[in-house]
Amino acid sequence: MSDTNDPRVQAAEDWWETSIIKMRPGLIEFRGYPIQELIGQTSFAQMIWLLLRGGFPSAAQASLLEAALVASVDHGPHAPSIAIARMAVTCGIDLNNAMASAINTLGDNHGGAGQQCMELYAHIRAAIAEGRTLEEGVEAGLDWHIETYGKVIAGFGHRFHPVDPRAEPLLGLVEQAARAGVVSGDIPPIARAVEAAIERRTGRTIPMNIDGATAVIFAELGFAPPLGRGLFILSRSVGILAHAWEQSEAGGRNKGPMPKQIPFTYSGPQTRRFESAGDVDLPSNPEVKP
Amino acid sequence: MSDTNDPRVQAAEDWWETSIIKMRPGLIEFRGYPIQELIGQTSFAQMIWLLLRGGFPSAAQASLLEAALVASVDHGPHAPSIAIARMAVTCGIDLNNAMASAINTLGDNHGGAGQQCMELYAHIRAAIAEGRTLEEGVEAGLDWHIETYGKVIAGFGHRFHPVDPRAEPLLGLVEQAARAGVVSGDIPPIARAVEAAIERRTGRTIPMNIDGATAVIFAELGFAPPLGRGLFILSRSVGILAHAWEQSEAGGRNKGPMPKQIPFTYSGPQTRRFESAGDVDLPSNPEVKP
Amino acid sequence: MSDTNDPRVQAAEDWWETSIIKMRPGLIEFRGYPIQELIGQTSFAQMIWLLLRGGFPSAAQASLLEAALVASVDHGPHAPSIAIARMAVTCGIDLNNAMASAINTLGDNHGGAGQQCMELYAHIRAAIAEGRTLEEGVEAGLDWHIETYGKVIAGFGHRFHPVDPRAEPLLGLVEQAARAGVVSGDIPPIARAVEAAIERRTGRTIPMNIDGATAVIFAELGFAPPLGRGLFILSRSVGILAHAWEQSEAGGRNKGPMPKQIPFTYSGPQTRRFESAGDVDLPSNPEVKP
Amino acid sequence: MSDTNDPRVQAAEDWWETSIIKMRPGLIEFRGYPIQELIGQTSFAQMIWLLLRGGFPSAAQASLLEAALVASVDHGPHAPSIAIARMAVTCGIDLNNAMASAINTLGDNHGGAGQQCMELYAHIRAAIAEGRTLEEGVEAGLDWHIETYGKVIAGFGHRFHPVDPRAEPLLGLVEQAARAGVVSGDIPPIARAVEAAIERRTGRTIPMNIDGATAVIFAELGFAPPLGRGLFILSRSVGILAHAWEQSEAGGRNKGPMPKQIPFTYSGPQTRRFESAGDVDLPSNPEVKP
Repeated sequence: MSDTNDPRVQAAEDWWETSIIKMRPGLIEFRGYPIQELIGQTSFAQMIWLLLRGGFPSAAQASLLEAALVASVDHGPHAPSIAIARMAVTCGIDLNNAMASAINTLGDNHGGAGQQCMELYAHIRAAIAEGRTLEEGVEAGLDWHIETYGKVIAGFGHRFHPVDPRAEPLLGLVEQAARAGVVSGDIPPIARAVEAAIERRTGRTIPMNIDGATAVIFAELGFAPPLGRGLFILSRSVGILAHAWEQSEAGGRNKGPMPKQIPFTYSGPQTRRFESAGDVDLPSNPEVKP
Repeated sequence: MSDTNDPRVQAAEDWWETSIIKMRPGLIEFRGYPIQELIGQTSFAQMIWLLLRGGFPSAAQASLLEAALVASVDHGPHAPSIAIARMAVTCGIDLNNAMASAINTLGDNHGGAGQQCMELYAHIRAAIAEGRTLEEGVEAGLDWHIETYGKVIAGFGHRFHPVDPRAEPLLGLVEQAARAGVVSGDIPPIARAVEAAIERRTGRTIPMNIDGATAVIFAELGFAPPLGRGLFILSRSVGILAHAWEQSEAGGRNKGPMPKQIPFTYSGPQTRRFESAGDVDLPSNPEVKP
Repeated sequence: MSDTNDPRVQAAEDWWETSIIKMRPGLIEFRGYPIQELIGQTSFAQMIWLLLRGGFPSAAQASLLEAALVASVDHGPHAPSIAIARMAVTCGIDLNNAMASAINTLGDNHGGAGQQCMELYAHIRAAIAEGRTLEEGVEAGLDWHIETYGKVIAGFGHRFHPVDPRAEPLLGLVEQAARAGVVSGDIPPIARAVEAAIERRTGRTIPMNIDGATAVIFAELGFAPPLGRGLFILSRSVGILAHAWEQSEAGGRNKGPMPKQIPFTYSGPQTRRFESAGDVDLPSNPEVKP
Repeated sequence: MSDTNDPRVQAAEDWWETSIIKMRPGLIEFRGYPIQELIGQTSFAQMIWLLLRGGFPSAAQASLLEAALVASVDHGPHAPSIAIARMAVTCGIDLNNAMASAINTLGDNHGGAGQQCMELYAHIRAAIAEGRTLEEGVEAGLDWHIETYGKVIAGFGHRFHPVDPRAEPLLGLVEQAARAGVVSGDIPPIARAVEAAIERRTGRTIPMNIDGATAVIFAELGFAPPLGRGLFILSRSVGILAHAWEQSEAGGRNKGPMPKQIPFTYSGPQTRRFESAGDVDLPSNPEVKP
């Protein structure tokens, strides 16, 4: 493509190779589609799909994706990411920076449950495809999850909501889409069977939560599990922005986690004198733990 | 609201006050709307509007917002944020972390042009409302911009595209919406007059770019200028995620900015010996510049 | 330097030009000093100086820098950055990510006071150099600060400590260093005169805080004001790491800002029904504020 | 500690419990030491140790830590974190933000090798403590590493330096410290035996690198493996700051990874027309992979 004999120029051009966007002066194409043909024609949800997957969804598939994106936008200031966004703006940084500090924390425990739950469903689906019954597949899937991610099954149970009000509406939409042939409908029975199996194992009802329900949608739509996390981030970014902006309008400087009338507890050593560094040696051969 | 006489509990509850979300066990409302009534009923763009503004847009207003969100999703690996997202995943961090490092850089020069351009349009609109002509308002606005943000007028000109292929389609949609009474139509003439005034002042055609065009939309829809940046972030996050994901699938470890066959130039002092710290004093009374 | 006729290779090599580090296979030099001569010979504080300034400080200058770095390491969980670091690790992200979310918030209000105070001192020093008296220079400096950064004078007063226990020990060290000829001694009288002038203006004693005192040191050592922020970040990163690590050892998942027994206050609209998007129009021509 | 009968106040105070810092108005103690006694008395490296470990090292132990901190400060613009810091400042964000975007990328592949290598050494040391020979322990350790982290042994080999010029000077200091009784001296023979075993297995000399050498120091000083990453971050932050600052002084706007004369390669589909979303369905039942 390059008009040089110096292979390093070609190496540099290839270093940033992408199949997402083509750019020439005056031209921008996404996955082959000129941008000017997409503006005003496609929804934001369809554009998300195009960039992540390489082609367009049907309108019905896009609607399903859109429902999942709508459902996860925010969970209030008790969520670490939302609190962080609000604290961050009071430190005198801009909205992009406050959003970054917050989005950064959407890690395995805070934004990764959907991804883990998609992996669980995929394991179960694969087991069934190999000839196991639904119940056997679910049991094997749960064993796999416990070994890989521990006993808190991703996508089920909520520390705040006895029943998560977002789960059933989402699941209802998938089941409706399955009846209409928009998606396979393989995953909802798997998800419900997981819920039943958890109840069997624990003796308690631990209902599906938002992550378990969006994982059903994302899996039915054929997204890879890590994109379950990615889509959640796109959705939650909206709440993060809204809270950062609300705090920005409210003002405040250096907002800590609690008002200062409530001090934090100190649990370290009593006041002591500093003699000199050499007087207070640590053992020179401490235990190194793996 | 609290059942205590200890005012610190109330202070703590108020510390995180918000008007965006109401949460009780089993209940989530956004701006007063129960979440289960929104799932499957509203588009993602409408939900963005609800959280940022407190009410719903009309379908036509939401479409206009959607067009702006679609247009800005990505500008390829030459954009620092996109390159950073791709480099970041090769360092062994997760998608949320890679996205955070990238979104963080959508600062004044990389994600703030829309915000600055909205301020420019608002200045001009205010001047006209006070009785100045369009041309006088534009001249005053440009003077304000140059004093505040410098001579590179935010929203006009592009270092890569002689004509930005995204600008006209967006502007066309606003003008169409204005004819339909969806928006006021005040801003497009202002934007076109800015373009003309820049040409008058510089002798060169410096056409409106994506930021100048989305600023028209956001301003017509009544968003505050800092939300111009916020909406751009929501849009560009899509491209950031797509590139992070593509790089993640491609693999690679510790991707630098260029292949290592191309070394960087060193322009510092020649090799020298370290004698001892005290021998190489800096002046003890250096100039302190403000 | 390059053995090619293709100017793009040279352009690429120059794109990342630096005077800080020279690298060839098997060779690393910082500012001209081979790394193997520095290891075991220089302190960490001297190395910080070398990278930021291009040469080495005297031992006495390095000690003064070291005192400032020691003084600012931590201010406990009421500081947003520290709280954020602790919350972040409970979200399942690594220490580097938790530190990034926290360091990111060391913005104008939370890590920038030292920089602003250094600018204030520099203004006053420059006024004196132009022939004004100390008192005139201080008055002019305060006026400049109020116009630029507002009435909260950076480096003076503390919302928690009536007297900041870190300020006097630091100032004592500078004054001692000035008597020994290590630094000029120009800045301490300026800083004390600012304190007196604030008292004159407000009628209240608003004593110098940690930022005001470290600004004296950094200014005496000839650092540019933005590096006052940079050095503070290097120092506070230690506390950020220590708290992230302590939280990591303590465990916990998705630590919010307060225990969930204390809910947040909701101040938005009452519960309402979602009819359809079009029914709840916002004004189509809202006020755009600059 | 609290004067209330409302248990929620105590719960809130305990929510942010720490043993690192005690704060009362006018009082700051770290691990029991009043801050004013530490300022001017302890080095920055000692203070880092105090905050992370709870007590003070001897002067000789602190020197060893200091050597490791000095050695890792920077590796130039080919390192993703350094390039990101430089790109970030040109986007119009502050030094704290640029540093955050960069530090964030010090993940498993870019800042985690020291941690992994410390775990490897600890495994081998534990095997020897259980009665295995050095060689048996090393073989078991390498097997563990390959299973856990893959075939690229953390701490050995460098894609740029045939021999890492930082490794031997660091190892020499540890061996000297061991002879003086400052540290146990257990780890250097383990590290050298790993190097020999890799050569035995691969037939190639793959010498210890900076991460392998600092891991020896951190392990000898009794730091937990995750703090190996933490200490590396504190060190590399210096280079990150220096490069961000150098770029900031050099100016530039939106610095991409390469000059724009070198375009990136596009490898996606050819230009195509957008008909309508529904016309270009993806398969409705895609494969879900775990």
